[in-house]
Amino acid sequence: MKIETYFTVAEVDPATLESAVVVVVDVLRATTTLLEALANGARGVYPMPSTEEAVKLAQTLGRDDTLLCGERKGSKVEGFDLGNSPREFTREAVEGKRLVMSTTNGTRALTVGQHGQRLIACAFTNLGAVARRVQGSDRVVIICAGREGRFSLDDALCAGHLVRRILSDAEGDLNDGARAASALAGFRKPTRKLFELTDGGRALVEIGLGDDLDICSEVDRHDLVAEMRDQVIVLTSD
Amino acid sequence: MKIETYFTVAEVDPATLESAVVVVVDVLRATTTLLEALANGARGVYPMPSTEEAVKLAQTLGRDDTLLCGERKGSKVEGFDLGNSPREFTREAVEGKRLVMSTTNGTRALTVGQHGQRLIACAFTNLGAVARRVQGSDRVVIICAGREGRFSLDDALCAGHLVRRILSDAEGDLNDGARAASALAGFRKPTRKLFELTDGGRALVEIGLGDDLDICSEVDRHDLVAEMRDQVIVLTSD
Repeated sequence: MKIETYFTVAEVDPATLESAVVVVVDVLRATTTLLEALANGARGVYPMPSTEEAVKLAQTLGRDDTLLCGERKGSKVEGFDLGNSPREFTREAVEGKRLVMSTTNGTRALTVGQHGQRLIACAFTNLGAVARRVQGSDRVVIICAGREGRFSLDDALCAGHLVRRILSDAEGDLNDGARAASALAGFRKPTRKLFELTDGGRALVEIGLGDDLDICSEVDRHDLVAEMRDQVIVLTSD
Repeated sequence: MKIETYFTVAEVDPATLESAVVVVVDVLRATTTLLEALANGARGVYPMPSTEEAVKLAQTLGRDDTLLCGERKGSKVEGFDLGNSPREFTREAVEGKRLVMSTTNGTRALTVGQHGQRLIACAFTNLGAVARRVQGSDRVVIICAGREGRFSLDDALCAGHLVRRILSDAEGDLNDGARAASALAGFRKPTRKLFELTDGGRALVEIGLGDDLDICSEVDRHDLVAEMRDQVIVLTSD
């Protein structure tokens, strides 16, 4: 089994993804948040590159059962219904709704990841479910969303724990990224305290969203897999 | 003291480097090789982006005391005097010579690094000397050359050991890259065996250059610092 990890989207060659199961990780916070939304009954999440495109799509879908969500510089986009904080995506807020979502880092990774055979969204909150789903694949490519095009420790750590869960005690054919991520995961567990030290975590604390880090660091909070199907991320069972 | 590490050149914002001491790392093999050359009496190393530019500069400098060096896909460029294998750069081959050098990954990092206040070349072979030289700087930016624009484990490990040497037991203000690299270095020492598992090391073994990994993994082989001065990398003493 071949497992590759890329810490920034720029490192990924989309042309080679066709043969791979792609897993996108954006711990702080896009994948954590969309999983929270789907766990709480949202029908699907439509990731959009720009806020303008998000607004347009929401109009097309019909505003009755559609929520506009997303952030710029961490904070909710003006005029949007929700930001990108997992705590906002309660059952009360999202059940039965379609969510159009635009975030700074996650969206780009999801766009590139669509070149894969399939595209799965991963966060610490659904780590075990994702590991079970991809087990037995020939080639898994884990794409970290990173932070403004740069390496992000929280994503790398999640990728590393995923590599370890997938392999269990088996041997894998790992690229340098997967090898480094797995090594990191060997002696670091996700905690709010650790996340508060990362570049992304510090930025969240600064804008008053430090409490997001509790959910973002919770391992296996959900036994759910979310996957892209026809441009929409939905829960899947196979 | 602020220490940042970037695992790929694309992650570096050159506009912010003015206030920083920049350290470029390309363990396999550009910085290892240029240190070997300078240790063996080469007068200076001129890094050039393309082989064409390298040939042109060598002609301008005069071919008598100038050597053309470099690789593409790991192997010596046709018509060049030397490749990029540290073992080639013996005293006999390079003493008193100026070296014009073009390599796949290292040159780009050195070009971007020139935006720094100063630019120092680092490999495992001169780790301690570099650490002592940059100690006390306000801001150190370590740029890993990486491999074809991607994360490279050998460079990350070298960056991490450098961070640890610089800080010793002091506290530093680290970005995510520096934090991850330092963590990796906490439980991995450079060895030929480890390098043989990395993407770059495997590629060298495949083309018959596995023996390069011995020098590349030798810590503190030289007590020398090489620095860019007027577009040329030379040994410096302050």
